[in-house]
Amino acid sequence: MDYDALFRSQLDTLRNDGNYRVFAELERTTGAFPRARRYRDGKASDVTVWCSNDYLGMGQNPKVLAAMHEAIDRTGAGAGGTRNISGNTHDHVLLERELADLHGKESALLFTSGYVSNWASLATLGARLPDAVILSDALNHASMIEGIRHARCEKRLWKHNDPKDLERQLRDIAPGRPKIVAFESVYSMDGDISPIEEILDVAEKYGAMTYLDEVHAVGLYGPRGGGVAEERGLADRVTLIEGTLGKAFGVVGGYITGSAALVDFIRSFASGFIFTTSLPPAIAAGARASIAHLKVSQIERQKQREMVRKLRSRLDAMGIPHLPNPSHIVPVMVKDPVKCKMISDILLDDYGIYVQPINYPTVPKGTERLRFTPSPMHTDGDLDHLTRALSDLWSHCALSRAVA
Amino acid sequence: MDYDALFRSQLDTLRNDGNYRVFAELERTTGAFPRARRYRDGKASDVTVWCSNDYLGMGQNPKVLAAMHEAIDRTGAGAGGTRNISGNTHDHVLLERELADLHGKESALLFTSGYVSNWASLATLGARLPDAVILSDALNHASMIEGIRHARCEKRLWKHNDPKDLERQLRDIAPGRPKIVAFESVYSMDGDISPIEEILDVAEKYGAMTYLDEVHAVGLYGPRGGGVAEERGLADRVTLIEGTLGKAFGVVGGYITGSAALVDFIRSFASGFIFTTSLPPAIAAGARASIAHLKVSQIERQKQREMVRKLRSRLDAMGIPHLPNPSHIVPVMVKDPVKCKMISDILLDDYGIYVQPINYPTVPKGTERLRFTPSPMHTDGDLDHLTRALSDLWSHCALSRAVA
Repeated sequence: MDYDALFRSQLDTLRNDGNYRVFAELERTTGAFPRARRYRDGKASDVTVWCSNDYLGMGQNPKVLAAMHEAIDRTGAGAGGTRNISGNTHDHVLLERELADLHGKESALLFTSGYVSNWASLATLGARLPDAVILSDALNHASMIEGIRHARCEKRLWKHNDPKDLERQLRDIAPGRPKIVAFESVYSMDGDISPIEEILDVAEKYGAMTYLDEVHAVGLYGPRGGGVAEERGLADRVTLIEGTLGKAFGVVGGYITGSAALVDFIRSFASGFIFTTSLPPAIAAGARASIAHLKVSQIERQKQREMVRKLRSRLDAMGIPHLPNPSHIVPVMVKDPVKCKMISDILLDDYGIYVQPINYPTVPKGTERLRFTPSPMHTDGDLDHLTRALSDLWSHCALSRAVA
Repeated sequence: MDYDALFRSQLDTLRNDGNYRVFAELERTTGAFPRARRYRDGKASDVTVWCSNDYLGMGQNPKVLAAMHEAIDRTGAGAGGTRNISGNTHDHVLLERELADLHGKESALLFTSGYVSNWASLATLGARLPDAVILSDALNHASMIEGIRHARCEKRLWKHNDPKDLERQLRDIAPGRPKIVAFESVYSMDGDISPIEEILDVAEKYGAMTYLDEVHAVGLYGPRGGGVAEERGLADRVTLIEGTLGKAFGVVGGYITGSAALVDFIRSFASGFIFTTSLPPAIAAGARASIAHLKVSQIERQKQREMVRKLRSRLDAMGIPHLPNPSHIVPVMVKDPVKCKMISDILLDDYGIYVQPINYPTVPKGTERLRFTPSPMHTDGDLDHLTRALSDLWSHCALSRAVA
């Protein structure tokens, strides 16, 4: 049997549909964020990155880098085992304490990634709580969807950010059954933010526990970077807060926080936590330095908001359509997959501006977009260059402008 | 509903069955492998680690640490995005080339962990190859089992390391269906090695592709550390070789290698690859340095084998029962969960020797063991200390000795 032919035929379909992905090859330059080198056909050029999820540039913060250097010198490269078999290091323990404190919870648990934290935690809750139902926001992230699927318990989708629809669903479920309401705070593609309080009200009314993914919010919202739940004074009402160390905190890894019993439960039963080598201590040390910094420093959040506001007002002035939302994510709507990819290619090749096109299946067809994430390190000069380039391309590609 | 009570009741069951895990808190000391600090109740003591999966101590190799330092200085902490959205760095591309070369394959693909590489790859193959059957060795690792479960295709277990049983199963399957034979080279708990050639013979006879997990073998076997398949000259016959950067290579992360079409297929369709932040460039750089070193250096492998041989002959001389196997893993059989945990506790508290007890469900009941992984850095003094301690405890705990 020709397996390669089977693989190629599905790849051809992907290509014909315009969904085949080619990765831009980059090398970020320490101290020059958001600048990077781009490699292509053996040559390198300079680009400005406008689509990083290292939202605050913490991946190049000197304190974070110093903490990583120090940990490598002190304790080496990897952890050398699973958490249970020689891989539970002092750095992991300290980081989990920092994370529990960040969210005002009793305990925290580290995972190798945010994806794994969602997948493993939801799969474990849904599979092990007897006769559980998971109520999932219709636009939840792939990692949550896969975790819920893996749980093989009853699953109900509720309309995106619609507490009324959630209530309609909860009302139907027998009161004695464990119920898990799973949702996000900031949804990464549209940049909209969920009505957390209303969702909590409904969940509490029906005795459901709540699972809140704050991966696009931790470090960015709340006076200590504890996320939208912290900003709105709601963190203590959320049963489980999930977050990442790979976006605003600038490193890598995922985590959950909650009661001691909840965290111990996931620690003890989640296959994706138990049977995997733990993160390198230097990663834990770097993440801890990043969290500690953003607990007290407001300047990164303030400057980021200023740059987001500036980009939005420039786009408005030029009539370039973007999705309004209350977050730091600026989706510029192209609404055509071919043009979206083309604009992105021209920006990269001719203007040294890197923004990845977001096409189906990541977003619905007809809503293709360029997703900009302005950072505190982007300058007014970067903004001028970007908006002029977009204006050129909007005319060049005959894309419709928004009416003021 | 009192969710914490639900969690606690399952944790109580775990405790009552003797399966509740308490993690030893360690801090490895750069340059002093296998020495580490152990933290407990706010105090620290010195221990020698005898159960690390950093099999060759590469997690403290100066070249590996230098590569990580250099990459942090050059490019920062995290990657800042998924591979598709700004997180595909030059260091990732270079590492994937190194990995493809290590196994003599066209392409390689990095994952955040070995667990994720197995889970995501098997789930994708099983789900997307039309009407596929996965034939899984009965003792495959949890990550493979979960991936196969997630695929939701037909699954057949074959008797551990038994090509005849595999053939019986393959014979029953319609010739036109895609068939994936999934197995490991070194099985980590018993340390036995699979009959790769016989398995390949059967798989090829029935037109099945082969998926070989070499996580406990890469870096350790073969003249360039390409694993058991390389050692036996069989790598080119295996369709997909999966490995880890977190054990003998001393860092963290997982990967697959295979044909360009196969790797592109997994790259393009595996949720667990697509929707997750990529590994930090410094991790990729450290891993690459480690692989490059072990491709040419034999001394670590030679010294490790010598230490494994010495430990085995000392155990034999003292009549302490251990499982015979052709690998670097030395399972000392206690065959009692309570005694296994007790011996491990006494070794740690009284002798400064850390070896994690391996109880059910990781191994079958009645086969509880201490799993030793001698490294090239363990000294004859370490060995004397360990074997004297074991002899004391064997008498103290009235455990049976093997008859010579």
